Amino acid sequence: MTSPTPKKVDITKPVLSKNDALAASNRARFANTGALVLNMISSPGSGKTTLLESMGRVLGGRLAVIEGDVRTQRDADRLRASGIRAEQIETEGACHLNAQRVAGALDVMRFDDDPTEILVIENVGNLVCPSSFDLGEHMKLALLSLPEGDDKVLKYPAIFGRIGVLLVTKIDLLPHLDFDVDRVVRECASLNDHFKTFRLSAKTGEGVATFCDFLLAERAKLAGG
Amino acid sequence: MTSPTPKKVDITKPVLSKNDALAASNRARFANTGALVLNMISSPGSGKTTLLESMGRVLGGRLAVIEGDVRTQRDADRLRASGIRAEQIETEGACHLNAQRVAGALDVMRFDDDPTEILVIENVGNLVCPSSFDLGEHMKLALLSLPEGDDKVLKYPAIFGRIGVLLVTKIDLLPHLDFDVDRVVRECASLNDHFKTFRLSAKTGEGVATFCDFLLAERAKLAGG
Repeated sequence: MTSPTPKKVDITKPVLSKNDALAASNRARFANTGALVLNMISSPGSGKTTLLESMGRVLGGRLAVIEGDVRTQRDADRLRASGIRAEQIETEGACHLNAQRVAGALDVMRFDDDPTEILVIENVGNLVCPSSFDLGEHMKLALLSLPEGDDKVLKYPAIFGRIGVLLVTKIDLLPHLDFDVDRVVRECASLNDHFKTFRLSAKTGEGVATFCDFLLAERAKLAGG
Repeated sequence: MTSPTPKKVDITKPVLSKNDALAASNRARFANTGALVLNMISSPGSGKTTLLESMGRVLGGRLAVIEGDVRTQRDADRLRASGIRAEQIETEGACHLNAQRVAGALDVMRFDDDPTEILVIENVGNLVCPSSFDLGEHMKLALLSLPEGDDKVLKYPAIFGRIGVLLVTKIDLLPHLDFDVDRVVRECASLNDHFKTFRLSAKTGEGVATFCDFLLAERAKLAGG
């Protein structure tokens, strides 16, 4: 008698399936209110929260935010100080948000009875792990800020291959840095044939209104469909 | 008869124990050659590779580097072009290095017969996951670049609580950015009572020689002990 061949178990599989089921439940809640929901991903310090403050000035009460951080309530506090509805998730060590934590935040903020038109879920500052976890969003978007360098897209293909929107941020620094925006867009296009690029500066406001108009148009399409 | 209470299994435990055993084996190899080994951790774009190029100009053949990235050989290629001995690890999706991958790189670069005095292991650009995996290094160091913002330390306590060195990088931008270095050092000190801070600019060279002198002195202490 030969001993049975040991089966290789992929321990990531059940975690993802459970997450996918919860993401589907979130997606149904989003469809029910008609809000457009974005999963915002970048390195720490690319300017996610600053951009959200800037978007709040354009979108007013149409915008709400779920903030994800390993620790601290700092980002939600900052947004609330700007008059934006914001709920903070502290992941307590986890390197990404998951659909379950988002569902909990939706409950706390009473999302289902909320007038939000654009909900942004700001993920933990991390270009790797958040890309694998569906939160139920309509679209992933990535920020790449000029000081990070123009060589990052092919180093982090999982996220840049999955985004619907690429935001090149801190564009006001372009005269001072050696950063080739065309290279970034070209390398992203080698991974992904369905993303749109915006060049933004939350500091000067450049591009922010155009980006917000795009989001409102995408939201109108949801309602139309 | 009551059914037995289900046991909660921590699936991270066996992974870490295997990693700890391999890290101990790496540590023995490092002790054998007398090299000082650093585990360099930061967000993408904080300037790790640029700093290493700058350190190569000071340390010459005393320095060698193991580069970690999710994908691409870009960083090792850059360093080799500057005359630095460098070996690339591509993690193929994994968000951090582990001791096993480092052991493999040590084999390829024939580290055990190598004259390296300072070995820097540049981890995957990620402030969260690499902090939990011992590679056998003498010291973890973190870079925080000015454009990332001065609010990051308490958001990523796992890494800032474990470092022996804090490198505040891109310090040449201080006149142009609203960044409070003292706040960063103070918040790091609230997590950690054994780190040393250097303020560096790989662009202007400020602080790089002082940091290299510190590393050579630490290496001499290893030999002395």
